[in-house]
Amino acid sequence: MKIRTTLCMLLLVIIQLSAQETPVVSKISSKMKQQEMSWNKGDIEGFMKCYWQSDSLTFIGNNGIQNGWKKTLANYNKSYPDKASMGKLTFTNRSIEKIDSNTYLVLGRWELKRENNFKDVNGIYSLIWQMKGKDWVIISDHSS
Amino acid sequence: MKIRTTLCMLLLVIIQLSAQETPVVSKISSKMKQQEMSWNKGDIEGFMKCYWQSDSLTFIGNNGIQNGWKKTLANYNKSYPDKASMGKLTFTNRSIEKIDSNTYLVLGRWELKRENNFKDVNGIYSLIWQMKGKDWVIISDHSS
Repeated sequence: MKIRTTLCMLLLVIIQLSAQETPVVSKISSKMKQQEMSWNKGDIEGFMKCYWQSDSLTFIGNNGIQNGWKKTLANYNKSYPDKASMGKLTFTNRSIEKIDSNTYLVLGRWELKRENNFKDVNGIYSLIWQMKGKDWVIISDHSS
Repeated sequence: MKIRTTLCMLLLVIIQLSAQETPVVSKISSKMKQQEMSWNKGDIEGFMKCYWQSDSLTFIGNNGIQNGWKKTLANYNKSYPDKASMGKLTFTNRSIEKIDSNTYLVLGRWELKRENNFKDVNGIYSLIWQMKGKDWVIISDHSS
């Protein structure tokens, strides 16, 4: 009976631990869905709400390594001046992994379907998500 | 006197905390120097010693998202079959930042100077370093 009790308690701990993990993964997935929706409405500032509003945010893309929320917003506005250039964004997450006590790594593929004279574009992202204040935000985005 | 003592103790704590940070940054810098040396001797396995020897290692490069140390080694061997194709590697770190209790993010620029029929190539990396076992290793490499 003692072993059975211990095993039951261990099982409960495992279930509790798993239950603690899942909401964060759901939260991040849900935030990325919101990002898609904002982008597809032409709302870059709404899309940017998931990024850490700090000068320490890092963004690596076509313009090399950039720092800061404002700089990132300025670059998005410059690269995507209107709704047609923004097209329809789809994120396809491949993995959302907890890598440290307060940090998740999200890997996946982004795709922009566009019309008129704009070519479709796509690539891969690695996003580092962290709890800052009371919310999960992207502290580093490498998109290629 | 009491305030002065408190301030002195606070200063000591700050100095101690700073001192704790520096060795990790030095360690990572030194490991990346060793990687350059191994690469420049044509020793890919030596270069790979800084990567986490796990199926969970992630590597994002020209081949998309790849998992695992063995797969990463196989890709390096395929892309760089001999010393001439490997050329001379230089890493230029832009930042080495602690982002969580056990995790550092390293951003920088890589460059391969090559001769004969091989073009010079360069790009940007974001590396996630973590203590695994008794050593700091790369658990995720996004190079573009």
